[in-house]
Amino acid sequence: MKAVSIKNPGGSEALEIQEKPIPEAKEGQLLVKVKASAINRTDIMTRENKQLSKPYPILGVEVAGVVIENNNVNHKELVPGTRVAGLVNHGGYAEYVAMPSDRAIIIPDNMSDEEAAAIPEVFLTAYQTLYWLGNLKPEETVLIHAGASGVGTAVIQLAKKMTKAQVIVTAGSDEKLQFCKELGADKLINYKEEEFDQIVLDYTKQKGVDLILDFIGASYWKKNFNSIKTDGRWIVIGVLGGAIVENVNLGMLLQKRITLKGTLLTPRSDEYKAQLTNEFIENVMPYFEKKLIKPIVDTIFMLEDVAKAHRYMEESKNTGKIILKIKE
Amino acid sequence: MKAVSIKNPGGSEALEIQEKPIPEAKEGQLLVKVKASAINRTDIMTRENKQLSKPYPILGVEVAGVVIENNNVNHKELVPGTRVAGLVNHGGYAEYVAMPSDRAIIIPDNMSDEEAAAIPEVFLTAYQTLYWLGNLKPEETVLIHAGASGVGTAVIQLAKKMTKAQVIVTAGSDEKLQFCKELGADKLINYKEEEFDQIVLDYTKQKGVDLILDFIGASYWKKNFNSIKTDGRWIVIGVLGGAIVENVNLGMLLQKRITLKGTLLTPRSDEYKAQLTNEFIENVMPYFEKKLIKPIVDTIFMLEDVAKAHRYMEESKNTGKIILKIKE
Repeated sequence: MKAVSIKNPGGSEALEIQEKPIPEAKEGQLLVKVKASAINRTDIMTRENKQLSKPYPILGVEVAGVVIENNNVNHKELVPGTRVAGLVNHGGYAEYVAMPSDRAIIIPDNMSDEEAAAIPEVFLTAYQTLYWLGNLKPEETVLIHAGASGVGTAVIQLAKKMTKAQVIVTAGSDEKLQFCKELGADKLINYKEEEFDQIVLDYTKQKGVDLILDFIGASYWKKNFNSIKTDGRWIVIGVLGGAIVENVNLGMLLQKRITLKGTLLTPRSDEYKAQLTNEFIENVMPYFEKKLIKPIVDTIFMLEDVAKAHRYMEESKNTGKIILKIKE
Repeated sequence: MKAVSIKNPGGSEALEIQEKPIPEAKEGQLLVKVKASAINRTDIMTRENKQLSKPYPILGVEVAGVVIENNNVNHKELVPGTRVAGLVNHGGYAEYVAMPSDRAIIIPDNMSDEEAAAIPEVFLTAYQTLYWLGNLKPEETVLIHAGASGVGTAVIQLAKKMTKAQVIVTAGSDEKLQFCKELGADKLINYKEEEFDQIVLDYTKQKGVDLILDFIGASYWKKNFNSIKTDGRWIVIGVLGGAIVENVNLGMLLQKRITLKGTLLTPRSDEYKAQLTNEFIENVMPYFEKKLIKPIVDTIFMLEDVAKAHRYMEESKNTGKIILKIKE
């Protein structure tokens, strides 16, 4: 089968289509014929990871496709022909992939493969950070940076549709902000034109927000600190603005009684991903079926154009997800 | 009545005995004749606080004494003559104090006033950090610095007697460590002679601890980071080793999926303190009644010697609590 791996760790030019054997569905797994996969920052990190040793893995941590074979007696409902989407540990950029069957989300009939591939990573991350880690409650206020990103667009929808929380977003262009508004965001901040902490404090009557979802890290540290309420929760899920904070005042952390949590979804255990998927299917998929929440697809690239797709993400051009489509 | 306040914010010489009116028990409060109070670091911070404006408060955040008057119809059991201990927002270093009645812990008959005054602040803090914030579970391992301090001695006892967790302590002398061992600590580290992170990693088979209770802050930052397990919880309740960390790697926070929480008990709401006290009475007081857990009193000073008592704490000479006794 065709699959995307790397020659050696490096830039987008390191990506290449290789011929690989079709994987085997081990006990508890499905063999899925992949219709679409999607690009994530974790793929870029893998692509660049100089610690990686050969044989290099097939990239890609999520897919949508069709069940070919089911090797799990506890999930008999997933008969061959069932359309499913879900997280895979790696191997998503390929014509076939093995997926633990307890991560399979059955795709609603009225949803395309490309839309379905836009769900697992960002919506599960959004669900995990808002609810499992962030404990978001109705009437609370959440600040989300990179509102037009994949996770951003998922967070806005979950926080508004499921919890009726107040949502403040930052983004780098008025176009992106307008898109966030259409998804339900209550307060829009163009971080290139305004000091977001000042706007947040004004909007919250100087109290600050209950919850921050932070992909940015170091470069926003001080302003996030200013923006958070006493007893607030602050979840760090990325460090696009740098990892090293030069001066952290723990005294202020005590005074404000802040909870700071670092998290990543990809390295979590199979059991964790299964539990998360299970709860997600129950609580969130009905919103997709009724089209109250929607997957946000920015651009669809063919598998062969994977290097272009990576560059597109690295330039932060996207609003929502970048999809890889696999030819029939 | 006699009460301890300050001339002006400053060192221990700023403390003075003043004549003050006996406070009134407002609705929901008890008037308590104070038999003993105790010294806390928060009192030292108040004493030094240059932002404080006149009239300066009476110091002291915990007492043991006798109910003189009860102005709460919902707590009729607290009749005059009942012996109680509990947190007060301030005013503990005095002959009388007003205390919200939902913070009153009835003192077991077999416990002295001085012992009872050694309970509220450190045991409620230990309970809050271990369970409400730290979510300690049986079979987990907790690292506690300043094991012989007031909070340290409370944490060791709760973690061992209530949860049967593994407890690793650090302290600065072998005498203090021996005392921690008698309270139940499993692993002792003299931080002046050993690198605690190396010992912790060896003891936990390179996994690290599930929970850190950290009074130290900046000077232990890196070693705490090394000592914590993936998915570990790290509660910062003091910054005796400095507040400013010069270089924090958020990338590592993500990789290890660490939860970092800052907390302080004294500034929390009345409602929070009432709930905490209530749960504490139910879950922990039976252990005191059966003498399975004991208040740790280091030294008893008379109220008039309060400046000496503050200096004694500032020199970290104590193992357990420093008590102020009020003359009959």
